[in-house]
Formats: sequence, C-alpha cells, structure tokens
Amino acid sequence: MTEFPDVAAAHERVVPFLHRTPVMTSASLDAASGAQLFFKCENFQKGGAFKARGAVNAVFSLDDATAARGVATHSSGNHGLSLCYAAARRGIPAWVVMPENAPKAKAAAVKGYGGEIVTCAPSTSAREATLADVIVRTGAEMVHPYDDDRVIAGQGTCAKELIEDMPDLDALIAPIGGGGLISGTILARDGLAPGADVYGGEPQQADDAWRSLKSGALAPADDSPKTIADGLKAPLKDRTWGIIRAGVADILPVSEDDIVAAMMLVWQRMKIIIEPSSAVAVAAVLVNRPMFEGKRVGVILTGGNVDLDGLPWMT
Amino acid sequence: MTEFPDVAAAHERVVPFLHRTPVMTSASLDAASGAQLFFKCENFQKGGAFKARGAVNAVFSLDDATAARGVATHSSGNHGLSLCYAAARRGIPAWVVMPENAPKAKAAAVKGYGGEIVTCAPSTSAREATLADVIVRTGAEMVHPYDDDRVIAGQGTCAKELIEDMPDLDALIAPIGGGGLISGTILARDGLAPGADVYGGEPQQADDAWRSLKSGALAPADDSPKTIADGLKAPLKDRTWGIIRAGVADILPVSEDDIVAAMMLVWQRMKIIIEPSSAVAVAAVLVNRPMFEGKRVGVILTGGNVDLDGLPWMT
Repeated sequence: MTEFPDVAAAHERVVPFLHRTPVMTSASLDAASGAQLFFKCENFQKGGAFKARGAVNAVFSLDDATAARGVATHSSGNHGLSLCYAAARRGIPAWVVMPENAPKAKAAAVKGYGGEIVTCAPSTSAREATLADVIVRTGAEMVHPYDDDRVIAGQGTCAKELIEDMPDLDALIAPIGGGGLISGTILARDGLAPGADVYGGEPQQADDAWRSLKSGALAPADDSPKTIADGLKAPLKDRTWGIIRAGVADILPVSEDDIVAAMMLVWQRMKIIIEPSSAVAVAAVLVNRPMFEGKRVGVILTGGNVDLDGLPWMT
Repeated sequence: MTEFPDVAAAHERVVPFLHRTPVMTSASLDAASGAQLFFKCENFQKGGAFKARGAVNAVFSLDDATAARGVATHSSGNHGLSLCYAAARRGIPAWVVMPENAPKAKAAAVKGYGGEIVTCAPSTSAREATLADVIVRTGAEMVHPYDDDRVIAGQGTCAKELIEDMPDLDALIAPIGGGGLISGTILARDGLAPGADVYGGEPQQADDAWRSLKSGALAPADDSPKTIADGLKAPLKDRTWGIIRAGVADILPVSEDDIVAAMMLVWQRMKIIIEPSSAVAVAAVLVNRPMFEGKRVGVILTGGNVDLDGLPWMT
C-alpha cells in the first residue's frame, strides 16, 4: 500500500529532473471566489504538466535491465509527453499509444521529446488493446498513467511542495480523471497537513468518481466521455478509488460551460495558460463559493498544453 | 533632464502599489534563440502591463490640489488602465480617451477600475484633439503615455528590477512604441549596468524609431499604423527620441508574421499570456540570432492584455 513515505522517497528521486513550480496568487480570483487561493502552477512543469512527476518517479524506479527495454503507455497526451521526457533523461526508448484525435500540439510534443507514437481509436478499450500489442512486441515496461503505485507517489510530490510552501491550508483541490493526482494529493496531505480537506473537481460529463463516491462502490465509466477536459476522461481504477474513498472530503462536478468560463478567467486575469482539465478545479471552487469562502485553498493547476488553433471558445 | 536618480526615486514611490514581477527563464526559448534569456514578466503586473509603473509614479508625484482635479490621458489601452488603477489608489478621478476600435477587453477593464472612457476615431490626431477637449472641460492633469518625465522615470523601474535580479546581463531589449519604456530602460542601464547594450524591437509596420535612428533625425510617423502590436502604434516624441538616440545600441524591425510566431511560441512553451507588443521584443531576438547568440539577454515582456475572442491566429 502506498503511503506518505513513498511520496517523500519519490520527491528525492524526481527533484533533479523537474521544476519546483511556483505558487501564484491573484487578487481577481480571490475576489471571484471569496477565498484565498494558492495556485500550484504545474503548467510551468517540464512537459507542461504535473504528469512529469509520476513518470520520472516510475522510470527512475526501474532496475537497469528492465529500463533497457524501454517504457510504454497509453495516454491522452500529458502522461505520454512526460514519460518520453523521463525516458530521454534515462536514455531509454518510450512508446506512446494515443487516440488518433488527440490535439496536434500534444502529438508534435511527444515526437519532439523523441517518443514513438502508436495511434488507436479514441476509446478506452482500443487504447488498452493497442498498448498490450506494443508491450508484447517490444518487451517494454508498461507505465500506466495512474493505476501504478510509482506514478501515484510521484504525483503526490506536487501537493507535498504546495503544502511545504503554504503550510496553513484549509483545503486542497485537484481535478479527477483516473485519480492518480488526487490519490497522491491525499497521501501528501496525510503526511504533512492532516487537518486539510482534499476535494476533487470533476467534469459532469465524466463523473464516474462522483457517482462512485455517492453510491459507495466503484461506478462504471463511459467508454468515450464527451468533455473538453480531455485529460480527465480516464476512469477510476480500484487502486485510486480505494485511496479516494478513504481520503477525499467531497467530489464536485462542474459543467462544460463552467470549465470554459474558469479557463478564460484564469487566462484573462492571471495571464497564464492552463488547459481545460486544470480549469475544472478552478471552476469547482468558483461554483461552490459557500464551501470555500474565507478559507485558504491550494488549487493544483495541472497543466498548460493546449492547441492554440482549437480553443474551446472558438466556434 | 531625466536621469537614473529619477528612476530610483520613482521606484521608492511605486513599490507600495505594484508587484515586483518575476523573471522567468525557458529552456525552449533559450534553444530557439541560442541565447540565455531572462524574461521580465510585466504581464503579471497590476493592470496587466508595465504601464502601471509610469502611471503610479506620475499620479503620486502630483501635489494634493492638482491631484484633486483628476487625471486624463489618451491611450491604446494599457496606459489608460494603469492610470485608472493609480488614480483609484489615490482616490481621484481618471478620464481615458480610447479609439472606438480598441479591444473590448481593454475597455471593460478601464470601466472595472472605475475610469471614465471617452471614445474617438482610431487615429493619433483624433486622440490628441479629444484629450484636449476633456482637459478643458474637467481641469484634469494630463498624463501623457510617454511624453512625460514622470512616466519615463516610472517605466525605468522595470529594467531597474531586472538588472538588480540579474546583474550580469550583456543586453536588454524592450519594444518601442512612443519610446517611454525603452527611454526608462536606458536610464536604468546607465545607472546600474553601464556595460549592457539596450536594443529596441519595433514593428516594421510602425517603424518611425528605426527610420529616425538610421537617418539621424526624428522621422515622421504614420497617423494610423497597421500592426497587430496595438500598444506600439504611437510615434516617438522629441523627449523620448533624445534619450533613445543617445543610448540605444540598435533598433530591430520585425514583420507581422514574426510577431505572431513569437507570440505563439511564448504561449506554447512558457505557458504565459503575452500581448503582441511584448512579442515584438521576443521576435527581434529570434530573428537576429547572430547578434544575441551566447549572450545573457534581459527581455521585457511588457503586458498580457489580449482579447481572447480576437487572437491573431484566428481567421
């Protein structure tokens, strides 16, 4: 079972290869939310997203013989990018299975980091089948985007840094897709800020975590959810669901309109580029004002990889 | 005559009201330029642009009787915003003359800061005539966006901070419109980093500073220049031309395509929002690689106020 000491060990492993990203504040966003918000800017992370944390921890946890055969993953983009970055730092190959409709910018970036892209149909089942083929063919080590203790421990280093920099937080909020980030966030909170509540923001259009929490049992997810938060389409797995069920204060669903509005607000007022998945956590704070008013809230801005030719407010 | 001690005095005056903006670096932009670039992020400044520096210095330089009648300016937007911010901090009124085709986001922001907008035709001559009317009507103190020693000294605080944070710069580069920022940058350089060269980036479509430098005499400017760098349409005046002529190493014109490409590169790789005027300085470094290769270059990113519904790569 993964616990806070695994997050601390991961942090020592990843520090040489990653940025300690800044924590930003914004008078405009504080006014809009009624809370004091502390934004952990993983959009400035290597690879443009927090996913580099889990990928680097996983790649540098491998023994030399296993590492030599390379690594492989399926991913909506950021995990793929990050695994390529980590693999390049260790000097090993990386195979990335990506849906054929993934943003152009993400595919170009994977190639830029030296990864090899294998395309598949845009569904969870097609991605898993294609990845299995790649692993049989190459002998590569699969590094799942979130159903992996090494990845979860790595993602927890983000909240660890945020809590170290802002020790008096009342709450932390992160978006939920497959649940790797929020699982790591819960582990970091358990070790460093046991009094803080951890919330998850989730698209209403991909709300398997919210349905699971309300029913008390892991709920089935759509095979192809329709949300602009394309980093959050993946379903929870038993591993992340177990940590979330035990450790989350609540899960807050948000609409597509709320996501776009929060994304535009951050772009306009904070002058930083965040992707729709990041905006889900911001939107969850803004539309639940009574829950966060007057509190010190750490908000994880997960990434900034967007296709500038396909912004959600372009029609 | 304005000199470095005026910049130092301005800095003491503005510090309580402004952010000391961060200096960012980017491995991607260093690779693209061949130089070591240090980006002074005035897009994170109050009001979203460096213009707050000159405006605050001007407003807080006024005696109480003058201040009570308020301030007025014509502006393509950022100076107007900033003057409203400064006036609000001092509790005095601000009138802003803006062209009727100014970006919607800028007009909304002026109103948000409590300023009163007076619209005019989109030409330099119409703006000056309308401003004269406002001053007669209200008795307000005119604060010119750049033809004003208080404003120039205030803008110089930006390079002062950059040089204090990065003392070994070989060069500094800023965009040139009316020349207030680069004049202040020259004064800061004179006082703190006399060995560093100061360069100006300028749109080819509004190149009166480049033509002036090449001919040795202040050259006439178009009344309505056509460039997406809408903060750089204003012409030099004798005051800024005098400082620039004596202190600039060179002025580097860039095309509209180069401006858009540099803007997109910064958005995609640095995950920060800069406006086209800021991208002019970045573009000047990228298209003049031999001039900056291997050097430590301070780049002033002047602002981040863009209309997200009218981005230059949307067609």
